[in-house]
Amino acid sequence: MRAIAFLSLLGTALALPSPKISTVKKPGHYRRPHRRDVVTNEVDTSASSPTTSAPKDNIWSFLSNDEAAGVIAFLHNQKALNLTAVDNAGDWDNTVTVIELLPPNKTEALSYMDGNGIKPERWAIASLLCGATEEPYAQDLIVGPLPVPEDSIYYPYTYGTHAPDAKIRVYDMDDSSELLSDVAMSMKDIISDILNATIETADDLADTFDIWGIDPLWHQPDENGNDQVIYWAGFWRYPHSIQMENSTINFDGETLLPQGLYIQTNITGRDKSKWGLIGILYGDEYYTSVDEFRAAWQNPDFKKFIPNYSGDWIGTDQAGNVMPLETEAPPMNVQPGGQRFKVDEENKYIEWMDFSFYLTFTRDTGMRLYDVKFKGERIIYELGLQEAIAHYAGNDPVQSGTAYLDTYYGFGPYAFSQVPGFDMPLYAYCMNTSFHASELSTSHRCGISIFEADQNYPIQRHSNMNYVSATKNIALTLRSISTVGNYDYNFDYNFYLDGTIETVVRASGYIQSAFYANNTEYGSQIHDSLSGSMHDHVLNFKVDFDIAGVENTLVKHIVEPKEIKYKWNNLTRSTMHLIRKEITNEDEGKMNWSHNGQEQVVIVNKDAPNKYGEPKGYKIMPSRGGSGMHLTITNSSNLFNSQDIEQEDIVMYFNLGMHHVPHTGDLPNTVFSTAQSGMMILPHNYLLSDPSRQATQQIRIDYNNNSTTDVYSWDSQIAAGKLDFSQITWDPYTYDGDVSVRKFPYDPRNPFNNTESIV
Amino acid sequence: MRAIAFLSLLGTALALPSPKISTVKKPGHYRRPHRRDVVTNEVDTSASSPTTSAPKDNIWSFLSNDEAAGVIAFLHNQKALNLTAVDNAGDWDNTVTVIELLPPNKTEALSYMDGNGIKPERWAIASLLCGATEEPYAQDLIVGPLPVPEDSIYYPYTYGTHAPDAKIRVYDMDDSSELLSDVAMSMKDIISDILNATIETADDLADTFDIWGIDPLWHQPDENGNDQVIYWAGFWRYPHSIQMENSTINFDGETLLPQGLYIQTNITGRDKSKWGLIGILYGDEYYTSVDEFRAAWQNPDFKKFIPNYSGDWIGTDQAGNVMPLETEAPPMNVQPGGQRFKVDEENKYIEWMDFSFYLTFTRDTGMRLYDVKFKGERIIYELGLQEAIAHYAGNDPVQSGTAYLDTYYGFGPYAFSQVPGFDMPLYAYCMNTSFHASELSTSHRCGISIFEADQNYPIQRHSNMNYVSATKNIALTLRSISTVGNYDYNFDYNFYLDGTIETVVRASGYIQSAFYANNTEYGSQIHDSLSGSMHDHVLNFKVDFDIAGVENTLVKHIVEPKEIKYKWNNLTRSTMHLIRKEITNEDEGKMNWSHNGQEQVVIVNKDAPNKYGEPKGYKIMPSRGGSGMHLTITNSSNLFNSQDIEQEDIVMYFNLGMHHVPHTGDLPNTVFSTAQSGMMILPHNYLLSDPSRQATQQIRIDYNNNSTTDVYSWDSQIAAGKLDFSQITWDPYTYDGDVSVRKFPYDPRNPFNNTESIV
Repeated sequence: MRAIAFLSLLGTALALPSPKISTVKKPGHYRRPHRRDVVTNEVDTSASSPTTSAPKDNIWSFLSNDEAAGVIAFLHNQKALNLTAVDNAGDWDNTVTVIELLPPNKTEALSYMDGNGIKPERWAIASLLCGATEEPYAQDLIVGPLPVPEDSIYYPYTYGTHAPDAKIRVYDMDDSSELLSDVAMSMKDIISDILNATIETADDLADTFDIWGIDPLWHQPDENGNDQVIYWAGFWRYPHSIQMENSTINFDGETLLPQGLYIQTNITGRDKSKWGLIGILYGDEYYTSVDEFRAAWQNPDFKKFIPNYSGDWIGTDQAGNVMPLETEAPPMNVQPGGQRFKVDEENKYIEWMDFSFYLTFTRDTGMRLYDVKFKGERIIYELGLQEAIAHYAGNDPVQSGTAYLDTYYGFGPYAFSQVPGFDMPLYAYCMNTSFHASELSTSHRCGISIFEADQNYPIQRHSNMNYVSATKNIALTLRSISTVGNYDYNFDYNFYLDGTIETVVRASGYIQSAFYANNTEYGSQIHDSLSGSMHDHVLNFKVDFDIAGVENTLVKHIVEPKEIKYKWNNLTRSTMHLIRKEITNEDEGKMNWSHNGQEQVVIVNKDAPNKYGEPKGYKIMPSRGGSGMHLTITNSSNLFNSQDIEQEDIVMYFNLGMHHVPHTGDLPNTVFSTAQSGMMILPHNYLLSDPSRQATQQIRIDYNNNSTTDVYSWDSQIAAGKLDFSQITWDPYTYDGDVSVRKFPYDPRNPFNNTESIV
Repeated sequence: MRAIAFLSLLGTALALPSPKISTVKKPGHYRRPHRRDVVTNEVDTSASSPTTSAPKDNIWSFLSNDEAAGVIAFLHNQKALNLTAVDNAGDWDNTVTVIELLPPNKTEALSYMDGNGIKPERWAIASLLCGATEEPYAQDLIVGPLPVPEDSIYYPYTYGTHAPDAKIRVYDMDDSSELLSDVAMSMKDIISDILNATIETADDLADTFDIWGIDPLWHQPDENGNDQVIYWAGFWRYPHSIQMENSTINFDGETLLPQGLYIQTNITGRDKSKWGLIGILYGDEYYTSVDEFRAAWQNPDFKKFIPNYSGDWIGTDQAGNVMPLETEAPPMNVQPGGQRFKVDEENKYIEWMDFSFYLTFTRDTGMRLYDVKFKGERIIYELGLQEAIAHYAGNDPVQSGTAYLDTYYGFGPYAFSQVPGFDMPLYAYCMNTSFHASELSTSHRCGISIFEADQNYPIQRHSNMNYVSATKNIALTLRSISTVGNYDYNFDYNFYLDGTIETVVRASGYIQSAFYANNTEYGSQIHDSLSGSMHDHVLNFKVDFDIAGVENTLVKHIVEPKEIKYKWNNLTRSTMHLIRKEITNEDEGKMNWSHNGQEQVVIVNKDAPNKYGEPKGYKIMPSRGGSGMHLTITNSSNLFNSQDIEQEDIVMYFNLGMHHVPHTGDLPNTVFSTAQSGMMILPHNYLLSDPSRQATQQIRIDYNNNSTTDVYSWDSQIAAGKLDFSQITWDPYTYDGDVSVRKFPYDPRNPFNNTESIV
């Protein structure tokens, strides 16, 4: 069966431009990495962590540095490609941008993983940026097999595109910063005045303002009907450096400092002499030349707006009153029993409880899971981010024209090392991440953290007058955090004892804001001259289900109100019932989350009924935040105009995200706690009972005999000084002795030596 | 302004029957508490917890035992009430059921809390059950002021009902168990056969089967048009006792053992001689007499179904394979710096960071918050559960006829003591809860736990090539867990550093299931003869907002797609914008969550604009699970036929809950982790920036100078052996040294003595 299902997707099939076609820069520090020697990826595996050996090699593992270097060398040997080394290349050269693994064909992969099939060959995808032509293009090539021998081949990677030979036109091959600077300098008197700056030289300009704008570029026909490439750029003020006691800090708040001045340029073609200014926007007035703008500015009625200035308000350091007791060390998770999962570091393979899975990492989308098994049976072949869209709107052309496709910038390069004790518990297992871009192989330490944590509520509990039973809710989290420009995205995959897997994404960091003037229809005013620019975050994930095999069916379980007449009552009753509806084609599979959550979405294998005749399945369900959202705009002027995605298996694409209308609380940074979204996939008639019953980290206390039946191992593990439940008389129903408030004194330096009984 | 807003409510105004009008029993152990002497509520406040003094007395505090005893004594002195002590009462007597505080009038309360107004008098609500009449009724009386002096008065409490003198007819004053038993014994031969039991005597019957059914009772006109009261009851098998090594355990799984046999009785009026059997249902066949049923049974074609039997499968103890490493002690939260919030135990008043609030507790709805202030300003006057509905459907009359209103059973009596280390962290602060029912005052130890915990992800973070900044996300949780019959409800109120308050409810425990025969339209078959009976959980909460004062306005912020023509472009653009729409009347205020989350709901004070002209507000937003749901059934045959709720302030009612279609994973218990629902209220242009910036539990690491600027106090608090960040060279962008895997070795018995540096 071949089917694609889109959960709460974009109204139309998600048609994504190739992620590497544009070099328009994103705020601030989004330059390409400089070339440097390939680094050695030496791994020091600590003996304190339980290890395992993956049953099979990780055939999805990211390319080794040697593999990547081999591909680069091979490509440079192909004269037809006319490649130039990145270090020596200019705009009119062809270069290699990214080298990535081509994931193996699923059929071959399963033949190897599940049987005696041979290990699939490794092949690479090489992304080229070809500037040595009047019509520059990006092109993805397939290269292999690896490691590249003499007879390796390459050919265009046409999957997911209709472009002939996978050549995608690039319209901003040539740097436009000189044009922008020239335009700005031609009105430096106006800028100095309205933006309250001293701009005498181009260096002054470059020191004071950052000029950048829309992504993607606009295409509009000119008067002759020819394609015209338009770039709208806005002025942003660089933040101040702030002198601290021992250092200088430059808070990264440029996206909070729009100046309200925008310039429209024509950057069509490769002959820069034909480029030029088209228009200027200031104070919601549009001017078609510098002269026209200057004439208006010289008019005494010209209205000047206060620009946004840098200051302490963009800093994230501690500020304001210190709260009572807040400086005391806060609660933290500790791991007294050591690490309870096993890692095959070389194969990036993890076993936790009855789950196992392989990890990999890509430059474009970061962390990715393959071959996720529960109790030895595959439930997911592949799980990972596909694309992350941040689509803005506003009264100015830069906000209105911004719709970032963040895989272009890449989640891999910006999955920086996580901070122990803050981004992850101190005891987390850290995994390195690598990617290969601009002929440089880069590794980050702890780009992925893996840890168990107590979720602070039990996964199961029940009590009555005779007893109470409760089980700890310990979950495993895989985390990576990527800072893509202004925003920090936290990606979590959580595994639970009941067989559930949760995908969570959170956003913190700096918002991209707008100039306040005339922008009230697009957000709140949040600072002196600042508008919180409304935008939608849509993070699209791919999940390739294999429930009891690859042949799966998508079923909706619809909870529906109904009037029903029963045999046992002569009146018609207003009640509800359950409808099971199979989704048999892809158009039906493009669905939004239903109103009132009345439609539950289940992936089942109809050929694998359980002993009661119910098909084994997994349900997909929103878990956090305003989940189940889709993009507000139905036919964006910036994105989404055609191309199909086709997939060879039952694959579901679901969205996480939020409609973000920033308010003052987003200053200086958005907080993760209110900007998160999650989706769970959970067993649905998959086993015959809840597998969390296998856990020994549970307790049953019998009230009647005044004794604690601590049946299981929890206490035995901490035998040195286990909590003494034996004196508890906890019959909640008949209890009539003295009542005391209990505040369990706790010695953090001796956490298990609490033998004091509960009176 | 007077307004009520219903968020995702029930289609019509929520008209709730009085919660105490029915005595139909719920599964198993739902008897009323036996009378016992009033217990002493002695409080032993540990010196290790920071204390505070509430600025004003807690005027919402639950009644003291003395206050309750005084009210009971006073009522017994009122000859007109004709009361009988609960211990001596029969069905034809009037008794006192519940004594509760009448919350003070809000205007008087605010006058006291905010100014120099006198402390409001304390008054009680006394609930009577009056059986000394042909038409029994329940009646709530107001009694006061307290403590009852000679001149105290009482009068009917008519708030929230249209019933004259607040007298609500009770239709099941008289016990029907004898009738049910007599009917069953009249067909003991059939029962013994089809239910595979040995029923010779009424004692055999009572030892083997529990016979109970619908809630609420049905009213149907008889052939003469007179009101007929119908009770449908089903047969449930008692679970086996299971012999363990040192004890016997009786798992509470009766609601997993429906037998598929139902009897319909007429219990109209108080003359039991006029009661009788109306019908019998078995195998989806309806019989109007025992004789008719026997005749069918004696027919060789009679189809018998396998009943549900008790067994290990209803047990919650550890079962199945022990998972790898699972018996090692798992991660846990510890509190090295001690408790970081202050408690006024007598006034049940808490101060955490910049929040403060009063707590109280009621028999019907459990834990309740009043006067929630953030930075000294009230944001919520009252927050608490109003009602919890569990509405079932099914092919049999018992499931179809079940719509529990759980405040009748009460959340207070079943808020049992929480289990340290499982229901709450070991270091949690425990608060007792008390209630007064059936002339008995009962206290539970640790009915409420209060604790901070690390949420395992930072609340804020941002990184770029120069630095990373992150802040710990420490939240305060108030928790109570009530086991109302088969289900365990976990209620959390979470407070966050950014000013957000979250309400979360989770469900675990045993599902109420259905017999499998012909029930496929209402759920999955989940065991040999068992159907997971579909049901809706709707937990309705009240939140009385006071944002910058009591005069508040409800505003929707609607994110809307729009075609717009801008000055700066000659083409019309497909984009989006923001609409602000005030909700000015209560009908508009009855709203469901919008499709795609495009409508954001904000409570603002229009008279309190911030310096940018935006009104101070709080937004209300789903946070967990399939939030924002409402009942599937729009005009239930069981509930909801009239009565208004009227409230004197801007009060919002919101629902948490889920459409629960149980599957095999709900056996033996539903897991909290996939059965939860949450709602957040979060500041919206309320302050001028994010208040979490006040936190010192944050870190900034500057990469460029290879030194860690641990600017704040976190490490200084654990000076004995702080983590040594100083050797980290963490420039994520330019890092090109060796890469190592870091697994932070951790000694749980000496958690802060990790001086080993990260190489």
